[in-house]
Amino acid sequence: MRNLSLMTDLYELTMMYGYFKKGMAGHVAVFDLFFRKNSPNSAYAVAAGLEQAVEYVQNLRFEEDDLAYLRSLELFDEAFLEYLRAFRFSGDIYAVPEGSVIFPMEPLLRVTAPIMEAQLLETALLNIINHQTLIASKAARVAQAAKGGLVMEFGLRRAQGPDAGIYGARAAVIAGCGASSNVLTGKLFGVPVAGTHAHSWVMSFPDEISAFRAYAEVFPGGCTLLVDTYNTLKSGVPNAITVFRELRERGFEPAGIRMDSGDLAYLSKEARRMLDEAGFPEVKICASGDLDENLIRDLILQGARIDLWGVGTKMITSQDNPALGGVYKLAAEIIDGVEIPKIKISENPEKVTNPGLKKLLRVYNEEGMAMADLMLLENERIDPSKPLNLFHPTDTWKRMTIEHYSLRELLVPVFRGGQLVYDLPPLGQIQAFCREEIATLWEQYTRPLNPHVYKVDLSYELYCLKQSLLDPAFASSSVPKLQ
Amino acid sequence: MRNLSLMTDLYELTMMYGYFKKGMAGHVAVFDLFFRKNSPNSAYAVAAGLEQAVEYVQNLRFEEDDLAYLRSLELFDEAFLEYLRAFRFSGDIYAVPEGSVIFPMEPLLRVTAPIMEAQLLETALLNIINHQTLIASKAARVAQAAKGGLVMEFGLRRAQGPDAGIYGARAAVIAGCGASSNVLTGKLFGVPVAGTHAHSWVMSFPDEISAFRAYAEVFPGGCTLLVDTYNTLKSGVPNAITVFRELRERGFEPAGIRMDSGDLAYLSKEARRMLDEAGFPEVKICASGDLDENLIRDLILQGARIDLWGVGTKMITSQDNPALGGVYKLAAEIIDGVEIPKIKISENPEKVTNPGLKKLLRVYNEEGMAMADLMLLENERIDPSKPLNLFHPTDTWKRMTIEHYSLRELLVPVFRGGQLVYDLPPLGQIQAFCREEIATLWEQYTRPLNPHVYKVDLSYELYCLKQSLLDPAFASSSVPKLQ
Repeated sequence: MRNLSLMTDLYELTMMYGYFKKGMAGHVAVFDLFFRKNSPNSAYAVAAGLEQAVEYVQNLRFEEDDLAYLRSLELFDEAFLEYLRAFRFSGDIYAVPEGSVIFPMEPLLRVTAPIMEAQLLETALLNIINHQTLIASKAARVAQAAKGGLVMEFGLRRAQGPDAGIYGARAAVIAGCGASSNVLTGKLFGVPVAGTHAHSWVMSFPDEISAFRAYAEVFPGGCTLLVDTYNTLKSGVPNAITVFRELRERGFEPAGIRMDSGDLAYLSKEARRMLDEAGFPEVKICASGDLDENLIRDLILQGARIDLWGVGTKMITSQDNPALGGVYKLAAEIIDGVEIPKIKISENPEKVTNPGLKKLLRVYNEEGMAMADLMLLENERIDPSKPLNLFHPTDTWKRMTIEHYSLRELLVPVFRGGQLVYDLPPLGQIQAFCREEIATLWEQYTRPLNPHVYKVDLSYELYCLKQSLLDPAFASSSVPKLQ
Repeated sequence: MRNLSLMTDLYELTMMYGYFKKGMAGHVAVFDLFFRKNSPNSAYAVAAGLEQAVEYVQNLRFEEDDLAYLRSLELFDEAFLEYLRAFRFSGDIYAVPEGSVIFPMEPLLRVTAPIMEAQLLETALLNIINHQTLIASKAARVAQAAKGGLVMEFGLRRAQGPDAGIYGARAAVIAGCGASSNVLTGKLFGVPVAGTHAHSWVMSFPDEISAFRAYAEVFPGGCTLLVDTYNTLKSGVPNAITVFRELRERGFEPAGIRMDSGDLAYLSKEARRMLDEAGFPEVKICASGDLDENLIRDLILQGARIDLWGVGTKMITSQDNPALGGVYKLAAEIIDGVEIPKIKISENPEKVTNPGLKKLLRVYNEEGMAMADLMLLENERIDPSKPLNLFHPTDTWKRMTIEHYSLRELLVPVFRGGQLVYDLPPLGQIQAFCREEIATLWEQYTRPLNPHVYKVDLSYELYCLKQSLLDPAFASSSVPKLQ
């Protein structure tokens, strides 16, 4: 992993310097990392990127050339550069595990650390978590649209730079893709890699059938041929069938054909019929070319006979929403052990933050389905012997009493006192966890268009704290006490 | 620079293996890297990413752990892995210099190399050039909208991963941004870095004025204060003015205020008036918050008094078009020294490629304005003593005769026989070149909505070659000879 310590907005360093000079190094700050809105037509996001965030924090140190560069800016004094030379993260980080289903306004990650340290982490944590969570959330929609068909991530060439390709593929696999074309992602994370040949292979031979024969000779086992270089139904599929027959005579069963252009519904149905009639009902049809969740769903509705989906540009860039918009907001300061909750106000009610050191609970019913989430203050306790009242901040008079519930705390400790206390799971385990997570969502939350909004509630105590910070005249007695 | 040799689609390696096994290692291939369409409402793109593409090619080598991983896939034999162990790029690359204005269908880069090598480069070159060209093209629009106002790149936290932030900022600076908040980009490329403090700074003090005083104490020179944490006009600007007066008493002139929310047109006009009345007409107003070229243009039209623009999410992700869609297509093969032009046909005429080893000329008028581009075969010569006929492929009967023109060859040699033969210019020089390039475009090509389409012509010889490959019955005698 590269050292990304300087990969930060300059203002993190000028603020650090300010805290350093003002003698505020002892102030402990609590920051929440969260996003405010889902992507369009999406009710949930899939958390991803924690592993790379952990690596970033573990590698945080300023090398001599970093310090020389900072000195050249003529903004900082030598004492501060000395402080940076010795810099190591010493705080606590809690986060939701990768693969978790997560909702707007909920902390994906919470940093409690001396304010100088917490501030430095802001930009890189946002960059890493925003990106992977964005792509995982998109991939979850794509995988759902494919209804169990294998989705392969094919976007490297259109990703926004190397990392976007490498870690975007990782995120896509977390949320349901079964393979990637990206060999480096395969090597780094043990992801299955997939791919056969391109149009240029076919064009490098005198004709299509020579190209197919050559490919089948080199890869007789698991041979997949790209059939749309010239004319899919008139030449590509018939030539593939000829070569598949030759393969079978040699004792090999062919694997599939791929089509990358044209009307994939019509072409796949015709190709399926031709393959079946030729005695190749087991040969899979793979489609690629500007696919996304909407086109996949429509193709399936139109009866397309596609078994495998190669999804590139639109997934690796989350084309309909290329930024998650996650933010990192001060929730509290702890000075001499006393917590001072902090709130960011705004004329836009969506931008008002939730104050205080908080935790996050998910409430499940007896079938294990997710009912709602509850954000509450860290020191609040829930009495499991009593029915749980959920109190919705935008719907003050409505309460929801849950008699039989189970609770799960979503934020888990990752760093304590600067030490990693979390076992980073392998990717396959994250993928399986993500599958389980999505299975706890009722269909109304996974509907592809206009899904229902999942309830994220504030506890009574948190609600009253927030109101009292917004309006010092607020009296909690005006709010019905629910517990 | 990391070794990105495995950052490739698996099919590049399977095709390489195929060429290796079929004894086609001696075939030389010519690939063109180009895009088919501009971003919406854009008539041109700005080429960027060549420096990182060069580094990628220079670092191309398979390490032992790469080979071990490839062996584990059970696709390749040991002879091929031995070939990879010794792999170095040995071919030629021509490219347009970074900062060049470039149009759809024109090669940004052309690789001539043994087909195995040329194929391997495809994915990474596309990834790097697609990304930086996309962001540079977006930034050119943003910088143009700001009409000379300083644009600062602020997008790192929303970029699609670390590289998207680091190299996206680089691309944005090439095309007209004057600074970036990204410290690592500053260190790597000598880009000016910018930034002051965040809302969290203000929230870490008992009140806004204490926060401002503290910041002004630490940074008395060039002090810029963020005025929208609580209420921009009622508290932020008045508190800033108080602190600016205190600074002036200490002998320092304040630099600016920044506003990140609210109606920036109204707020900036009011803030300007308040600052002027208080005796601070030199204090600059910086705006940030979901800006893009359209909002900047509208704010200026509405008389906003904004001097500096901090542009984040929408530029660093090219939000309205997050992928350029560049492709890498086989244009020719050279077997035993004989060129065999290649064409990719498609039922979609936009997807038909231009065959052959080509060069690219830009035609300028006497004032140095770009008139049109001409794509022609590498061995064609233009007689400068004769008027130039431009022949438009979609408008067969129209010709344009240019009496007084000058020509510039856009593709320059970068690698010859695997050796770098190009001096990579420093970023400041690329930025200046880009400014000159954009100045050669008539206004109709830089109009923000529905710009005119710039003419990219094929030479008569290239046109006839293309037609004859599309239709073997094509006779060049049916086309009027123009030269």
